[in-house]
Amino acid sequence: MADLDRVLATVDADLDASLERLFAFLAIPSISTDRAYADDCRRAGQWLVDDLAGLGFASKLNDTAGHPIVTATSGGDAPRRVMFYGHYDVQPVDPLNLWDSPPFEPRIVENADGVKRIVARGSADDKGQVMTFIEACRAYLKVTGKLPVEVTVMIEGEEESGSTNMAPFVAAHKDELRADLALVCDTGMWDAQTPSIILSLRGLMHDEIVIHAADRDLHSGYYGGAAANPLHVLSKIIAGVHDDNGRVAIPGFYDGVNEPPDYVKAAWSKLDLTPENFLKPIGLEIPSGEKDRLLIELISSRPTFEVNGMWGGYIGEGSKTVIPSIATAKISCRLVADQDPIQVRDAVRAYIHSKVPADCRVEFLGGEGSPAVAVAHDNPDLAKAARALGEEWGTTPVTVGEGGSIPIVGAFKKVLGQDTLLVGFSLDDDRIHSPNEKYDLTSFHKGIRSWARILAALAD
Amino acid sequence: MADLDRVLATVDADLDASLERLFAFLAIPSISTDRAYADDCRRAGQWLVDDLAGLGFASKLNDTAGHPIVTATSGGDAPRRVMFYGHYDVQPVDPLNLWDSPPFEPRIVENADGVKRIVARGSADDKGQVMTFIEACRAYLKVTGKLPVEVTVMIEGEEESGSTNMAPFVAAHKDELRADLALVCDTGMWDAQTPSIILSLRGLMHDEIVIHAADRDLHSGYYGGAAANPLHVLSKIIAGVHDDNGRVAIPGFYDGVNEPPDYVKAAWSKLDLTPENFLKPIGLEIPSGEKDRLLIELISSRPTFEVNGMWGGYIGEGSKTVIPSIATAKISCRLVADQDPIQVRDAVRAYIHSKVPADCRVEFLGGEGSPAVAVAHDNPDLAKAARALGEEWGTTPVTVGEGGSIPIVGAFKKVLGQDTLLVGFSLDDDRIHSPNEKYDLTSFHKGIRSWARILAALAD
Repeated sequence: MADLDRVLATVDADLDASLERLFAFLAIPSISTDRAYADDCRRAGQWLVDDLAGLGFASKLNDTAGHPIVTATSGGDAPRRVMFYGHYDVQPVDPLNLWDSPPFEPRIVENADGVKRIVARGSADDKGQVMTFIEACRAYLKVTGKLPVEVTVMIEGEEESGSTNMAPFVAAHKDELRADLALVCDTGMWDAQTPSIILSLRGLMHDEIVIHAADRDLHSGYYGGAAANPLHVLSKIIAGVHDDNGRVAIPGFYDGVNEPPDYVKAAWSKLDLTPENFLKPIGLEIPSGEKDRLLIELISSRPTFEVNGMWGGYIGEGSKTVIPSIATAKISCRLVADQDPIQVRDAVRAYIHSKVPADCRVEFLGGEGSPAVAVAHDNPDLAKAARALGEEWGTTPVTVGEGGSIPIVGAFKKVLGQDTLLVGFSLDDDRIHSPNEKYDLTSFHKGIRSWARILAALAD
Repeated sequence: MADLDRVLATVDADLDASLERLFAFLAIPSISTDRAYADDCRRAGQWLVDDLAGLGFASKLNDTAGHPIVTATSGGDAPRRVMFYGHYDVQPVDPLNLWDSPPFEPRIVENADGVKRIVARGSADDKGQVMTFIEACRAYLKVTGKLPVEVTVMIEGEEESGSTNMAPFVAAHKDELRADLALVCDTGMWDAQTPSIILSLRGLMHDEIVIHAADRDLHSGYYGGAAANPLHVLSKIIAGVHDDNGRVAIPGFYDGVNEPPDYVKAAWSKLDLTPENFLKPIGLEIPSGEKDRLLIELISSRPTFEVNGMWGGYIGEGSKTVIPSIATAKISCRLVADQDPIQVRDAVRAYIHSKVPADCRVEFLGGEGSPAVAVAHDNPDLAKAARALGEEWGTTPVTVGEGGSIPIVGAFKKVLGQDTLLVGFSLDDDRIHSPNEKYDLTSFHKGIRSWARILAALAD
């Protein structure tokens, strides 16, 4: 029996123990955007350090100005080395009342059709995916005592809050982190049967817009009809961002956005991605973006402008006839191709400045960003990984661009000089960032098997 | 020494005791829109019942489906009777961090210029004003053992939450409440030196708009660019309400809005009400409403549409790249002349329905309202009150329309057949509904004296 077959058999036999470890990891509420959870973030990092040390990795928790970064290095003598990147932090859980079970009490729930899912915040994004890789390493080490390729692990705790300290850390630890290839497990399957390898990631710029009007909240009876209402001002600004064709109307916003080659577009138009199968499952029907674009373009190769949160005035129970003094919006833009995050931020801010009435003012709290990143199409490791995934899933993986952003991947190329293989096992219905986030048991189980196969393939 | 002079001297002598009573009343956090304060509302009502019983009034706390209503009746034999209406409930206090002292720990604060103000939620709206009347009655009873006119008092606890149970109560207690004139002390002075009598009140319609898009919160990386964002939808709706000239663009909104007579407009244009003296003190400069209207029209004789609160998506610390499933706005419209609240509500809702994308839906939670009300110009009691106010303040009161709404005043005319005299002593800078609400000590002191004079004048 070949090594790989014995490793896969061990993955199968040890699945319950793997789940037990995952559940312990998921139970830690490592919400990075909320300072109240700082200790929990550190605890999640330390959990990984301990687990990796148990595998014989030289592991440590590296302090940063924010949440710590986990690094771990295998000490074998395989001729090649990969660097695996993931994150231990998770998104906030509100609105809590929409969860069917507490977000940090992981459990297996069986659907009516017999499909089992792991329900918890972070199950799919990204703790479950991180553990598919670590469990694959564990099985290899258990069976053969060594890894087919040496492995460096780097797991950060600020991916959901902008990866603020990640790029400086990579720059400062170049030698420790350099490898032949970076691996990232934070993306999804094409569908429940078809794996995918991601060829590009959208960038991200986020900002917070605060409109100030009167110097206090006002009684709408006395001042209504005469005093500027910052919620009206902000609504007008947001309403003007998209034109009637769904295109962002901000001058300069599309600078650096390239058209993909015709052959790529031709392949995309053959994908079975329709409003019926993409939007209907979430209760929608009509693509909201640019009317002259394919759905796959809207979600992968075109930039976006979204309001992620907005508030002002009285938002409690009942009514209050107030004209507020302040209104706020948190916005983010997904970026593609050669768009420069700072230039986009400045274009957005210039547009907003032009729309604020003379007696109001705008303040910006944010403005960080990272550019889009493309992975080399011609790296021979991609073909190896595709073959390994095909063997596990029984079908050729789809290779497409991805709509989400993983800010640090650009630095792997620029700073470390290594391409990134983006493979992941989450599904469109995993409710990532939403209540009742889940990760199918099959994603976890076959995810571990997939990484075992990929590690073997990369050694060739 | 005439009775009135002795009464006024007693008011002056007893001011500290009057303040002590007011402070006890202000210390009760009777916020009517938040159910958490239901017991406090009842406590505030009971406080009044006890205080009025101490004056010899037959007083009681009348239960309703919401907060109780206080009624009290004096039992003398004066030939005329007035019914005084006020409210013991107050507005919510958020944002609490903008208060310089706790809102329910009333205190006297002295300005740099020596002006003393009573700082507390409800000091001006309406507990302080209510107590000006009760203290005037107390002084009269102390000095003469009787009142110049008999008095019925009705103090509700839901004025800040739509007076839901007030109209049915008035209809059910017609005989008990009927009087020669209604008195209301919930309005303001023209300026710190000039009293005013209010000749009309704007009506109010409030509603809550909920836009539903996807059936869950979405990850903006996966769905951004394709999925409808309810915050964008709601912003477009709000942005479309006002045209570029500040006019409400909703079809049918202005039905029933009349132009005041030319002589009234001529008088208004002579008032010294400018952006400089009305908006500058609150940090603004430019009237935001209809560009072709006088400022006095915008705040008294023209209807308004205001967003009082709006929220959706992630509003916590940090960022969250979510496309929310729901966005909400609380809106209110001030109504004038013959506008029908239900017709306005339906016009607003029809407009909103026409703007919601086919795959989103809108829900309305609210929609109550009350029409505007005009007070008879030719009631001889107005002239008596004007004379009494003139004697106290040394200047003729201004008689104007008022921008705020007191929903129940319409029912006093319609159901009880009595005109209402609207006199109050709050000032434009009292921060009503805002943090650091205050009521000048002079408003309180001379307010008591003013009511003593008015009670005497109405007996003639």
